[in-house]
Amino acid sequence: MDKSELVMNLAMKRGFFFPTAEIYNAKAGFWTYGHLGTLMKRKFENLWRAYFLSLNNNYFEIEGNSILPEKVFRGSGHLKNFNDPMTECKKCHFRFRADQLIEDELNQNSSGLSEKEIDDVIKSNKLKCPKCKGELSQVRLFNMMFDVKIGATNTEDIAYLSPETAQNAFLSFKREYFALREKLPMGLAVIGKAYRNEISPRQGFFRLREFTQAELQIFFDPGKINEFDDWDEIKEHKIRLITAKHKKLEEIKSIDLNKKQKLPKFYVYHMAKIQEFYLDILNVPRERFRFRELSENERAFYNKIHFDIEVYFDTLNGFKEIAGLHYRTDHDLKGHQETSKEKMEIVNENKRLMPHVLELSFGVDRNIWMLLDVFFVQEKERTLLRFNKRIAPIEIAVFPLVNKDRLPEKANEVYRLLRKNFTVSYDASGSIGRMYRRVDEIGVPAMITIDYETLEDNTVTIRNRDDMKQIRVNINELNDILERFFNGEKLQKLGNIIK
Amino acid sequence: MDKSELVMNLAMKRGFFFPTAEIYNAKAGFWTYGHLGTLMKRKFENLWRAYFLSLNNNYFEIEGNSILPEKVFRGSGHLKNFNDPMTECKKCHFRFRADQLIEDELNQNSSGLSEKEIDDVIKSNKLKCPKCKGELSQVRLFNMMFDVKIGATNTEDIAYLSPETAQNAFLSFKREYFALREKLPMGLAVIGKAYRNEISPRQGFFRLREFTQAELQIFFDPGKINEFDDWDEIKEHKIRLITAKHKKLEEIKSIDLNKKQKLPKFYVYHMAKIQEFYLDILNVPRERFRFRELSENERAFYNKIHFDIEVYFDTLNGFKEIAGLHYRTDHDLKGHQETSKEKMEIVNENKRLMPHVLELSFGVDRNIWMLLDVFFVQEKERTLLRFNKRIAPIEIAVFPLVNKDRLPEKANEVYRLLRKNFTVSYDASGSIGRMYRRVDEIGVPAMITIDYETLEDNTVTIRNRDDMKQIRVNINELNDILERFFNGEKLQKLGNIIK
Repeated sequence: MDKSELVMNLAMKRGFFFPTAEIYNAKAGFWTYGHLGTLMKRKFENLWRAYFLSLNNNYFEIEGNSILPEKVFRGSGHLKNFNDPMTECKKCHFRFRADQLIEDELNQNSSGLSEKEIDDVIKSNKLKCPKCKGELSQVRLFNMMFDVKIGATNTEDIAYLSPETAQNAFLSFKREYFALREKLPMGLAVIGKAYRNEISPRQGFFRLREFTQAELQIFFDPGKINEFDDWDEIKEHKIRLITAKHKKLEEIKSIDLNKKQKLPKFYVYHMAKIQEFYLDILNVPRERFRFRELSENERAFYNKIHFDIEVYFDTLNGFKEIAGLHYRTDHDLKGHQETSKEKMEIVNENKRLMPHVLELSFGVDRNIWMLLDVFFVQEKERTLLRFNKRIAPIEIAVFPLVNKDRLPEKANEVYRLLRKNFTVSYDASGSIGRMYRRVDEIGVPAMITIDYETLEDNTVTIRNRDDMKQIRVNINELNDILERFFNGEKLQKLGNIIK
Repeated sequence: MDKSELVMNLAMKRGFFFPTAEIYNAKAGFWTYGHLGTLMKRKFENLWRAYFLSLNNNYFEIEGNSILPEKVFRGSGHLKNFNDPMTECKKCHFRFRADQLIEDELNQNSSGLSEKEIDDVIKSNKLKCPKCKGELSQVRLFNMMFDVKIGATNTEDIAYLSPETAQNAFLSFKREYFALREKLPMGLAVIGKAYRNEISPRQGFFRLREFTQAELQIFFDPGKINEFDDWDEIKEHKIRLITAKHKKLEEIKSIDLNKKQKLPKFYVYHMAKIQEFYLDILNVPRERFRFRELSENERAFYNKIHFDIEVYFDTLNGFKEIAGLHYRTDHDLKGHQETSKEKMEIVNENKRLMPHVLELSFGVDRNIWMLLDVFFVQEKERTLLRFNKRIAPIEIAVFPLVNKDRLPEKANEVYRLLRKNFTVSYDASGSIGRMYRRVDEIGVPAMITIDYETLEDNTVTIRNRDDMKQIRVNINELNDILERFFNGEKLQKLGNIIK
């Protein structure tokens, strides 16, 4: 089995995630998080929140709606522009994303081409349906938003499921600007569902029709784009990136990105912080991480600066986009002002202005898949997920050596003692060897075993997932020692390793 | 202004919530949480999670999809049964929920009546359109689910936005049962969005078309319905309830509900815990809380036992449903088994059985509105939200007495020191009197002021929201003292009250 299958099997079997509504032949692009996946997703979301919202005391989270009225998407431009080129087989009626088809069949990147140009590529290369060799229809644009009707059937009430959470921030901009007392920069984050009616989603868990985004829209004075309060903190940080111009991986200091490459400080500061989040908080290996600038052809027309954040996926054989940093200018506020006739300009520090927006956009599900991909390890005798302790869905497993002689009762006591501060699982069945394999496989950093000695002297063993070493400690000290272990201290400093 | 307007104005002005897409004339039933509302909602969700998932070590959260294929709702019965009776004015074409119309116009409860019977009530009472006095159409049933089409237009791919989160738990039942090693009871919670295409939603924030549910489906062996491991812990608890039979408020001990009223232990245990959540965790006053049993007419046909959880709302002039405890039997698993032909029976402890389900279902948004309603207080000189410290969106406000002389810098230091452990806001503008009013109004339990004395001796004042008393403490002790304050110790025990 290749790694992709191994990770997927583990995820499905242990309760990370599985296709939604399998009993009814699940539709592609819909997945459910099981109990482990949900614990892990919550941790990712909480880390994201804690990290990015603390960058400025005027960054906050809001929560809006998925169903938004049609006019919103007229204002945002999605109604007109949020399309994928589609072609249909005239014989078997299977539908394909035309650009994907070209990439698959001709190994040729067609992003940035018009539907007419894509159609020409298909015709001139005489491409046929890959399923049945039937003739392909003319390429046409297909809007990727799901539409819904609000109220009893009535054409005036068409709405769409939002294809990005960002619109909620733009729609709430003025309310929040005044509630937050008219300060810039102001950040409005949304962690929530987004919906895209993908023509033929592939790549299993990686491209979804219903997915979670964590986005932060930062409204700022465009006159201050080359300022950021905490600039000095990151100016020496080396950023790993590929620019559209140089087309090769470089490590460049923030200060040089600003001075030589003319990337504004406001932008570079957030680049540095995103890199820090991946390298220092999630512990993604440095060589797997990079920013990649999109060329003018590739990026949305309203993004003036656009770097994708990419991580190398073993399971997908390459660097893949898991987040993006987009300088959207005043595209959205201006669009909503024009469509709604509601003024979006504000007065800030006695200056009338239309704020510009920097967007941090993360695909939460892709990040979860990335973490499984990066930290999945197969050793000779065991499979393990070598997660950072912060992201491990279960932090501590409690296990009684045998399921009798008052050991389960004692283990249950320990379980209850620990679960006030940690995510703890309790399991009393099977042998200790199988238990080790079960908890390694889902990345539990610490396992506590209750044995006969425990009944005599109130001590238990703590086993470290990564090196399988154990120490023996008194239950009275257990919470304290585990807290230090989870804060990064080495197990051997917290007790004597058992030989 | 009446209380309802006062609370709504406060909520909209300060960033608790406001209508979605106001600039495009918001549709009824869609609301956005601002920064304070979102902080509060996260706290509610986290309290709910921590409390209900800790009732048993086999209760876990999962996360599924809102878009589910049509067959799911054939299996669950929603396609056939999830309807509201609707009538339309033949003149102005406004549509009404027929049962609401009858309640409004005749003050008569029509729940449980068929559409034919409702139609008869309208005809025999000669009801007209309340808007324009036009004639009303025959009552017909209107399915309240939003439908969406998956993929490029294709009639086979109809799906619906789920009107309850519960279906995800039923669809995931077997996957999770095996991932969690075949134990019962097993609880699967979902906290997520649900969607109902209400014909004409009213009551502002209380009845929504897109809303958040926190639901827990507990799968158990029906042969053990009169057992629960921790029964003894709650058997003496007095439950406040109105039974369908007695029709009056009573306080009855759990053990008597079980013995005399024949409510099973599995059910009563969860009643007791729900009551504890409201009274002890959220501090809802006892006299405002009750369970109310639904009569056979009122409840869904598949609910064998059904109590609503109700709280008295000043703003809505009465007790209103904010949650429910439903014994759904094997209705859902059986329905999915029949429709999908996939066996839902399992073998548990060597017994072949179809699990039954107890559902705890909470409307998160209604609970947020309830907390604002219950804790909103108008005193002579100030308005305040007297929230429990656990639910207050901002826990601590930091304020420099004047915005100069190094006080803002010092205040910022304190802000950074505290925000590792607390939700803290920083504000440097306005007078201290206005600052007090601003933080009281949003229920901040503690306010720290940095003044000239701070620069001399490193002390600050802590002001208690509830009695406006203050103590002076050293910054070195601040985190520790605030932690004790937030854990329930009285401020006067933690320092000398300033006269």
